[in-house]
Amino acid sequence: MLGALDLAKSIEAGRLTPGKLLETCLEAIAAREDEIKAFAALDAAGARKKAAGLTGKGGLFGLPVGIKDIIDTASLPTGHGSPLYADDQPRADAAIVVQVEDAGGLVIGKTVTTEFAFLNPAPTFNPHNAGRTPGGSSSGSAAGVAAGFFPLALGTQTGGSIIRPASFCGVAAMKPSYRLLPMTGVKPFAPLLDTLGLFGARVVDVAFGLAAITGRDLRVDGRDFGVPHIGISRFSFLGAAEAGGIAAFDRAVKALTAAGAPVTALETPEIFVEAQAAHGVINAYEAAQALGFEHRHHGAALSPILRATLDQGRAVAPEAYDRARGIAHQARKAARDFSGPVDAFLTYAAPGAAPTRETTGDPRFNKLVTLLGLPAVNVPVFRDEDGLPVGIQVVGAFGKDQRTLAAAAFLEAALA
Amino acid sequence: MLGALDLAKSIEAGRLTPGKLLETCLEAIAAREDEIKAFAALDAAGARKKAAGLTGKGGLFGLPVGIKDIIDTASLPTGHGSPLYADDQPRADAAIVVQVEDAGGLVIGKTVTTEFAFLNPAPTFNPHNAGRTPGGSSSGSAAGVAAGFFPLALGTQTGGSIIRPASFCGVAAMKPSYRLLPMTGVKPFAPLLDTLGLFGARVVDVAFGLAAITGRDLRVDGRDFGVPHIGISRFSFLGAAEAGGIAAFDRAVKALTAAGAPVTALETPEIFVEAQAAHGVINAYEAAQALGFEHRHHGAALSPILRATLDQGRAVAPEAYDRARGIAHQARKAARDFSGPVDAFLTYAAPGAAPTRETTGDPRFNKLVTLLGLPAVNVPVFRDEDGLPVGIQVVGAFGKDQRTLAAAAFLEAALA
Repeated sequence: MLGALDLAKSIEAGRLTPGKLLETCLEAIAAREDEIKAFAALDAAGARKKAAGLTGKGGLFGLPVGIKDIIDTASLPTGHGSPLYADDQPRADAAIVVQVEDAGGLVIGKTVTTEFAFLNPAPTFNPHNAGRTPGGSSSGSAAGVAAGFFPLALGTQTGGSIIRPASFCGVAAMKPSYRLLPMTGVKPFAPLLDTLGLFGARVVDVAFGLAAITGRDLRVDGRDFGVPHIGISRFSFLGAAEAGGIAAFDRAVKALTAAGAPVTALETPEIFVEAQAAHGVINAYEAAQALGFEHRHHGAALSPILRATLDQGRAVAPEAYDRARGIAHQARKAARDFSGPVDAFLTYAAPGAAPTRETTGDPRFNKLVTLLGLPAVNVPVFRDEDGLPVGIQVVGAFGKDQRTLAAAAFLEAALA
Repeated sequence: MLGALDLAKSIEAGRLTPGKLLETCLEAIAAREDEIKAFAALDAAGARKKAAGLTGKGGLFGLPVGIKDIIDTASLPTGHGSPLYADDQPRADAAIVVQVEDAGGLVIGKTVTTEFAFLNPAPTFNPHNAGRTPGGSSSGSAAGVAAGFFPLALGTQTGGSIIRPASFCGVAAMKPSYRLLPMTGVKPFAPLLDTLGLFGARVVDVAFGLAAITGRDLRVDGRDFGVPHIGISRFSFLGAAEAGGIAAFDRAVKALTAAGAPVTALETPEIFVEAQAAHGVINAYEAAQALGFEHRHHGAALSPILRATLDQGRAVAPEAYDRARGIAHQARKAARDFSGPVDAFLTYAAPGAAPTRETTGDPRFNKLVTLLGLPAVNVPVFRDEDGLPVGIQVVGAFGKDQRTLAAAAFLEAALA
């Protein structure tokens, strides 16, 4: 994998040029893209031209960035993982793409998304095992970082579309606090849940990338944040995890304890149970609105799993949706008390290692965190006997994105 | 003007056909569109074809609806009031357009918006006086309803873009609670503020239209909601209104009192002063993101007033934006106590009657209400000596859209 932070330092020090870095990426792509299928659109010539023309600085100066293909780009088509938008060319870049380029980042290509960022599996393969899913919906972004195609990539999460593929592909990733990153120009699925985030090799890389993109104080390298107080919760009301997930959880706790971090078991408030159900109601109801045109006029071109969810969403009564929003509101309040005493808490990133490619894996440990709008980081923990990575989810308080990243980086170091 | 509710009843009773109603609209358009310029795109032939092909029912069955030209339509270009998007043809309808058509409504055309729904005046004229602005940014929607071009029209409000033009054009309109109407496919300006709404001849028409579009219990006709308890606040920390605004306010209070409604003066919480300033910070910061592509790559094609605001927004530090969001959050809480004891409260819809066409008028009495996310209705009150309408703003509690509409309808009846 390519470490964004170290690469940026090398470029700044003059030991590396954007053009040379791009060639390294293109070589990795040439070697493995046929097998992995991380890209929905790749314009090597265009990227070379951009790299040669880069001026100014910006924290991401010269770093190639993969852009999930539900995010509009003016220089590359945006297909949303659907034949309905094959080769569709947006007129404008999404706000987040402007921010990436303002920071000196180089849009290297569009990464494969599942159909409209929902559950129907995408053509991408897990770089660690071609028989397994890379996870979804940000399939190409997670797989591409894992395969060294680019050091950073944008993804989105409505259920578990950032944290789950990061765990399956063995990369770091963050779903920041709701609304930290601007959604203009990103195809909505359920606007109350849709959240942009970033993939990178390690937690420090993700923090570095987010800091550069947002102009915020989010970096966690080169500074001592002290020993975090960590909460743990297995969200057992969501069912048991698999052996891989449990092993990752236990290793993380052990590493934290060995590193001197106080670890406290947290008791989940009852409203979280209802909130998990509310996620489903909000997700279906809002998707039926956001994809209303596609559903009404091109239903036959949608996957059965998406069409069924949109049918279901259309049947949700407005009162049921309002009730779900009310529960979400209460649950967000309850989350403040829940995680108040700790710097961050651990829960599963996914039930276990990546399953086979018939599904994109189970997002049940991600949905609630998404609904709550909390910052969440995947920290890779270990690889199982099949070579498949398993991560752990580090979740912080709303708006405390740097503190969450610092806790995740502490854990990452403790595991190393 | 065309009353949506009565027209719908006539169609349902078989006294009127969608085709006949459309011809009535097209005649009004033929007579005055050259002079008013309410349309950004009008496809009479396409509308006739749609009217002839309408099947099923839906509350809006056969009613022509004007669609503000920052709202995507698959059948008509969407220009956003900017040469940058002249004749741009979206691939999909916005979610709200799907809802309008699901309800049986007929998209008659796109209505003129100011450039990206900001402050630069649009070419539309006030139907009551060609020397005056119709208000903005939903200029064509307000003017078109006033001129009898269509019974209903969609608009959006980020500062005062629904309530102010409704007041200037003498029509009813509602900006519902934040997020009541789905924003997918509507060009964002400041997503934390952007709100869709509806224009109609009278309050009952707007309520009827919103009920049909949303499938919610929002109608206020044919049912007794009792006598509302009304609060009043002149928002005097925002400066004095003009003679016309003050006269409208006084007449509204007098009419309510005469109709037996208890009227209570409300004391504004101090946080409202800061919240008004926070609106400006959020508006500029988010606009600089949402229009980042246009700003960076096509700045010369933007109006000076928009470019200056985007420059300013780009200079806002993330910490200042976060602070403004925190203030907005506190102010929303304070608004619950503020309006808690009453069913709705009155404040100015605009300082006075429509000014001349160099500006779109002053939105200062609208911004705070938008930031608070509260449902707000313009009720036309009277016409001044120049024949210019002046309205009053009826504001309710968050999520209490029907109660707000009922209070506005009570006032409308009391004024009649």
